Amino acid sequence: MVARVEPLMTTPAEIPQPSPVLFFETINAYQRTQALKAAIELDIFTAIDEGEVTPRALAKRCRASERGMRTLADYLVVIGFLTKKEDQYSLTPDSTVFLSRRSPACIASAVKFLASPMLTDNFRDLVAAVRKGGTVSEQTPLAPEHPMWVEFARAMAPLIGPAGEQIAKLLDARSGKTWKVLDIAAGHGLFGIAIAKNNPQAEIVAVDWPNVLQVAKENAQAAGIAGRYRTLPGSAFDVEYGHGYDIVLLTNFLHHFDPPTNEKLLRKVHAALKEGGRVATLEFVPNEDRVSPPVPATFSLMMLGSTPSGDAYTFSELERMFRNAGFRSSELHPLPPTFQQVLISRK
Amino acid sequence: MVARVEPLMTTPAEIPQPSPVLFFETINAYQRTQALKAAIELDIFTAIDEGEVTPRALAKRCRASERGMRTLADYLVVIGFLTKKEDQYSLTPDSTVFLSRRSPACIASAVKFLASPMLTDNFRDLVAAVRKGGTVSEQTPLAPEHPMWVEFARAMAPLIGPAGEQIAKLLDARSGKTWKVLDIAAGHGLFGIAIAKNNPQAEIVAVDWPNVLQVAKENAQAAGIAGRYRTLPGSAFDVEYGHGYDIVLLTNFLHHFDPPTNEKLLRKVHAALKEGGRVATLEFVPNEDRVSPPVPATFSLMMLGSTPSGDAYTFSELERMFRNAGFRSSELHPLPPTFQQVLISRK
Repeated sequence: MVARVEPLMTTPAEIPQPSPVLFFETINAYQRTQALKAAIELDIFTAIDEGEVTPRALAKRCRASERGMRTLADYLVVIGFLTKKEDQYSLTPDSTVFLSRRSPACIASAVKFLASPMLTDNFRDLVAAVRKGGTVSEQTPLAPEHPMWVEFARAMAPLIGPAGEQIAKLLDARSGKTWKVLDIAAGHGLFGIAIAKNNPQAEIVAVDWPNVLQVAKENAQAAGIAGRYRTLPGSAFDVEYGHGYDIVLLTNFLHHFDPPTNEKLLRKVHAALKEGGRVATLEFVPNEDRVSPPVPATFSLMMLGSTPSGDAYTFSELERMFRNAGFRSSELHPLPPTFQQVLISRK
Repeated sequence: MVARVEPLMTTPAEIPQPSPVLFFETINAYQRTQALKAAIELDIFTAIDEGEVTPRALAKRCRASERGMRTLADYLVVIGFLTKKEDQYSLTPDSTVFLSRRSPACIASAVKFLASPMLTDNFRDLVAAVRKGGTVSEQTPLAPEHPMWVEFARAMAPLIGPAGEQIAKLLDARSGKTWKVLDIAAGHGLFGIAIAKNNPQAEIVAVDWPNVLQVAKENAQAAGIAGRYRTLPGSAFDVEYGHGYDIVLLTNFLHHFDPPTNEKLLRKVHAALKEGGRVATLEFVPNEDRVSPPVPATFSLMMLGSTPSGDAYTFSELERMFRNAGFRSSELHPLPPTFQQVLISRK
């Protein structure tokens, strides 16, 4: 997997040791978040993609000052989102695909969730969260019908959704068998919808808060599979699932809870599955050392800051939860180029 | 200088292209700031230095939950401040020197300035600053007697102060000539004090706001050179410097202003100097491309967010300001391991 961690903007070989550079870059790292957010809000990436490549042209196009634009664009070069030659900027391959609104794979909308004060303010008193061992926010995102999840469903679909096709493929949805699929905490609904698109014999039952299911229903409609899409509004812990499911989708859900809570849920999932039925669990799965690869490993702090007792679980922790809930086996699959993995567990 | 920029925590070779990893790591980068700040406030680095190396021992020592401590310490491993073997953490060489309070070179106090809402809140609406071409904060740090500068003088001395010894050496303070030294915007006063300590024939005149000069006077007293330390309270632009100076220190000052304002100040400095007198200007000096090395290049955004029209100036821009103000020559000197450079300009 990831063999080596590279936390610096400056390459270590260039810095005499000891050096305060890592300290200075890290304590100012919040500016990277804000610079990327500002660049997306000003739509700089699309502007460059459309040929506005100098500070002056960008300033005019994005209704900003030339000085401000030059400074921001230079900063985006340093942190890896643009390149610069003379006074002209270019998109990197990643920025072309993910940050220009001309690209069908554009994920720019995700800033509306990931950089929203609703989420980021959880980290303003991280000392208190570390002392407590969980979020100190009174408005936890796990509260019924929290508006955060509507924003999540709308903003994060382009970033998270593409894994849906990969999961459908892993499950062999194209085999075209008659499937009853339960999509727990469906959010934007794209995981269930991907299965329905790949398998015309699949029927999807989506569980989530009523306000969120509205987004999933819109997406099912747009995908032309609304006739095979049913919703079950309510908490995944309380709602009656029914039974005889071939597939259960459990995407980005377990990390919000502690292991006993997850095992309780998994027993309920187990009961709803047919014999031989499968669960696809999409998660941030760090290695057993908990400090690699960087994205899943750092996701543990995201959960510490924003949930009462969630975490990024290792494979062995996830496998144990499934085993304790009665599942026969669990296998982990990477989903490149995403930073997540999927666990396929069998009843 | 810096040959290559390395913005990722994950090494590029490990990520299939295109990948959303850089986007995700960057949009969450604010958590790096908060994690480092929390670690310093909980005094984790000192605790590890004193042998408390497991999550449990650290939790007990720092009065935190074991779960919160494990998550934070793992995060500090990923971003490069700790190493981990089994469930035991160790300090890196940098953390030992700069973040353990047992170290005389500890710079931990700098978070009180660099991560204070007073500074970081300037970046909460970066779009507005880019549109305007300067800070949108109403309470600009350039206002008379802004309390920010007292905090700066106290908190930043350990991070910024060590350059004082290097500047004293560059100026050959040990030659022991009778020197009259003007320290403009003296702050903590450590640059003038370093010269006074190296040259018993040097007299220092420190200019700053009265509330800040209080800190400089304390430091001069502690260094045993108070008898050769005089203060001139007021704005560097308005106060009467006197004349016949051998040396003028202009440290971390020019980046707050635009070039015409700086040239006006430099003409005043020029008039106060003896013929052949020198100015030592400590600055963040990016290369002419403005996108390297990372620390000075990104400092331009710090100024965009927090000042009306300041910037990180390149050598050619600084040299031009000094030339326009009547100086004969300017030379740039790196100050490793700091991330700053010093310009020595001669009348």
